[in-house]
Amino acid sequence: MGADALSELLDRNDVAGMQAWLAEHQPHVIADELGRQDAVTAGLLFRLLDKDRALTVFEELDPVDQQNVLSGLRDRSFHELVEAMNPDDRARLLGEAPAKFAQRVLAGLSVRERALTADLLGYPEGSVGRYMSPEVVPLRHHLTAGRALDTVRVKGEGAETVYTLPVVDDQRKLFGVVTLRHLVLSPPDRPIIELVDTEVPYVQAVDDAEAGARLMQQANLLALPVVDSEDRVVGLLTIDDAVELIEAADTEDIARQSATTPWSGHYMAAGVLQLARSRVVWLLLLIVAATLTVNVLQAFEAALDQVTALALFIPLLIGTGGNAGSQAATAAVRALAVGEVRTTDVLRIAGRECRVGLLLGAMLAVVGFAVGALLVDIPVAGTVALSIIAICAWATMVGSTMPLLAKRVGIDPAAVSAPLVTTLVDATGLIIYFLIARVILGV
Amino acid sequence: MGADALSELLDRNDVAGMQAWLAEHQPHVIADELGRQDAVTAGLLFRLLDKDRALTVFEELDPVDQQNVLSGLRDRSFHELVEAMNPDDRARLLGEAPAKFAQRVLAGLSVRERALTADLLGYPEGSVGRYMSPEVVPLRHHLTAGRALDTVRVKGEGAETVYTLPVVDDQRKLFGVVTLRHLVLSPPDRPIIELVDTEVPYVQAVDDAEAGARLMQQANLLALPVVDSEDRVVGLLTIDDAVELIEAADTEDIARQSATTPWSGHYMAAGVLQLARSRVVWLLLLIVAATLTVNVLQAFEAALDQVTALALFIPLLIGTGGNAGSQAATAAVRALAVGEVRTTDVLRIAGRECRVGLLLGAMLAVVGFAVGALLVDIPVAGTVALSIIAICAWATMVGSTMPLLAKRVGIDPAAVSAPLVTTLVDATGLIIYFLIARVILGV
Repeated sequence: MGADALSELLDRNDVAGMQAWLAEHQPHVIADELGRQDAVTAGLLFRLLDKDRALTVFEELDPVDQQNVLSGLRDRSFHELVEAMNPDDRARLLGEAPAKFAQRVLAGLSVRERALTADLLGYPEGSVGRYMSPEVVPLRHHLTAGRALDTVRVKGEGAETVYTLPVVDDQRKLFGVVTLRHLVLSPPDRPIIELVDTEVPYVQAVDDAEAGARLMQQANLLALPVVDSEDRVVGLLTIDDAVELIEAADTEDIARQSATTPWSGHYMAAGVLQLARSRVVWLLLLIVAATLTVNVLQAFEAALDQVTALALFIPLLIGTGGNAGSQAATAAVRALAVGEVRTTDVLRIAGRECRVGLLLGAMLAVVGFAVGALLVDIPVAGTVALSIIAICAWATMVGSTMPLLAKRVGIDPAAVSAPLVTTLVDATGLIIYFLIARVILGV
Repeated sequence: MGADALSELLDRNDVAGMQAWLAEHQPHVIADELGRQDAVTAGLLFRLLDKDRALTVFEELDPVDQQNVLSGLRDRSFHELVEAMNPDDRARLLGEAPAKFAQRVLAGLSVRERALTADLLGYPEGSVGRYMSPEVVPLRHHLTAGRALDTVRVKGEGAETVYTLPVVDDQRKLFGVVTLRHLVLSPPDRPIIELVDTEVPYVQAVDDAEAGARLMQQANLLALPVVDSEDRVVGLLTIDDAVELIEAADTEDIARQSATTPWSGHYMAAGVLQLARSRVVWLLLLIVAATLTVNVLQAFEAALDQVTALALFIPLLIGTGGNAGSQAATAAVRALAVGEVRTTDVLRIAGRECRVGLLLGAMLAVVGFAVGALLVDIPVAGTVALSIIAICAWATMVGSTMPLLAKRVGIDPAAVSAPLVTTLVDATGLIIYFLIARVILGV
């Protein structure tokens, strides 16, 4: 395949071959390959692109890769690329770049483009304002379809999208939205007031960008009108940015769910140190939390000495509890992320998940009892079986409610990761196990 | 908030209040609320909607909820709704419905709509064909922009999108794509051959739908041309369906990552039995796999008897190994899902993740040594510290490579869940621990 060929070309340092490869492949494929390379190689490959395609490829790169590529360019190509970017993409690039780099970007911009970018950068990080396109074509509500189409023809060139057109009243306040499709398919003398959808959702520029993106997804919109605090139209959030927002949010949530600090960038381009850094904080916190299990076992050391067989089932028991808890936590975090669950649902969820846990525990207990009876004896098997039921119910309840409680107190629910739930359930699960052993075995 | 008000209205059975609530809220909010309710309540609420809005709300529902709502309707309303659906949405509904329900749907359709749906259902499940819109407006490549716009005006009414228009040659083969934007902004006498983008990506109807959706995301497309085996245009995959495909795939991957069988439907609407069913298979498999840990511990029972203190660190060690392995597995699965990693990268990833594991292990070993030295003695502390390093390196290596190897042999990499990695690392981690103990403590 082409991809393998490129890595061979790079190994052989075959510049002519690389140029041929770049000419043969589609821009998004090239962008993907650039993302996989280190900064130097990415810069080299980018400079080999012919000028027309360079911009297309550049627009498809992630902000991190754009920065890598730009850093390797001379001033002239640097400024041409930056000037040609959409204001929202430029704002995103600047938002993640070091100050010195940002200065170089801003220094080369025309007055108009600098003003557009500065406006976007005025909005808080993670807000809709950072991701919207400020270049929109607002239509006055008294136009006809034909006149509206004329307006689009005159002013549409610079806009990122002309498919969703905000309609405004005399104060520039959002009145509704009309689609280019309706304008094209309607007779030219039809007033757009008859075509406008006034029930369309909209957001404020300071609102959370991810929430805006998920709103677009739920309502099947290609673009979402963005207004300021006085309901005046200031931009549009377009679907391509919304898709990227959702995808980035999902990637972040997934990373958090495995107790990893999210980082932006390509997995293959990340170094050993970067990967280690994204993981070490949580691992350290979790191993400190896990010392609790050492304390619990020490407290029950007498029981362990008396019935050594109890030790045999420790990994099985805490493993099962951890798995059941992880399942419940993951389901709750995802349901919160896609908006299926609200924090007020906590009691209903706790009750339901506890019953799920009891049911699951009862089925797993059969396996636990069989293994215990086979390898040790009936009393130990009974202890293991009862412990599985209790631990499963406890784990599913803790796992499902913790994300909701976290959200209530303002913590990202995805931070309630499977490893965190597992670690917490480990210690409490051991206590449950030894208390049941005390009752049944009298240790 | 409105949402709470609705649940109160339902509790009070206040029909007038519900009607007022439905009139006040936007279709996607109503669809969201319907999704949270059981089938009977959802059907009741839906029948209270006035007719104009019912279709809009219905289109925003998930297939599962659409089925619930439809099941509660009389034939006339049932057939009106089904006839008004887009062919691709209808095909999706039918794909998940029981045979009897599907018959009722097909029986009421007009000949044209039934033919369109049957075409889509002819494509394999999960293929682009199931999700594409078959009603497209193909343009002949010799048209001018003005004539092309006329064609759109005549044939565009029934099409799901007219923003991306496939351009075809005389054999109806895909030649490229032209956007409505270009048609509107160009002088009417300009030949569309000058406006057409011939480098645009496209897919075959039998290709994997998720891959097509991710391609659209990477290339920032609003619609992706779909062709048959002879390159003739048969439809368009639109961005709203692509977003849903990606979101559903992410939800599925996330569920699999916690060893849960994915199910389609709303978390709040799922019953105890449904939740238990989606989780029990993996839990059972994992508990059976976990009996391996019992065997390992039994094999080293003599060592445990000699130095009981070794038992104290079992949960901490296997917990840490499980966490490190989960992080690596999650990162690899996600990188595969978004296309950042290929299966051929396996050796490079194994080497890098092993070094990440050694580095992480070295840092965590400090904590392990301190706890061991404080609570027991230096030799045991040394055993624990060395085991942490070895287990972490092993866990990250296993966790990161297993998803790639799974994909190579044709298994969904997301099935390599964190719990699966944890369970496997548990048993092998214990072996590592006791072997190191044998060397250092001579047990």
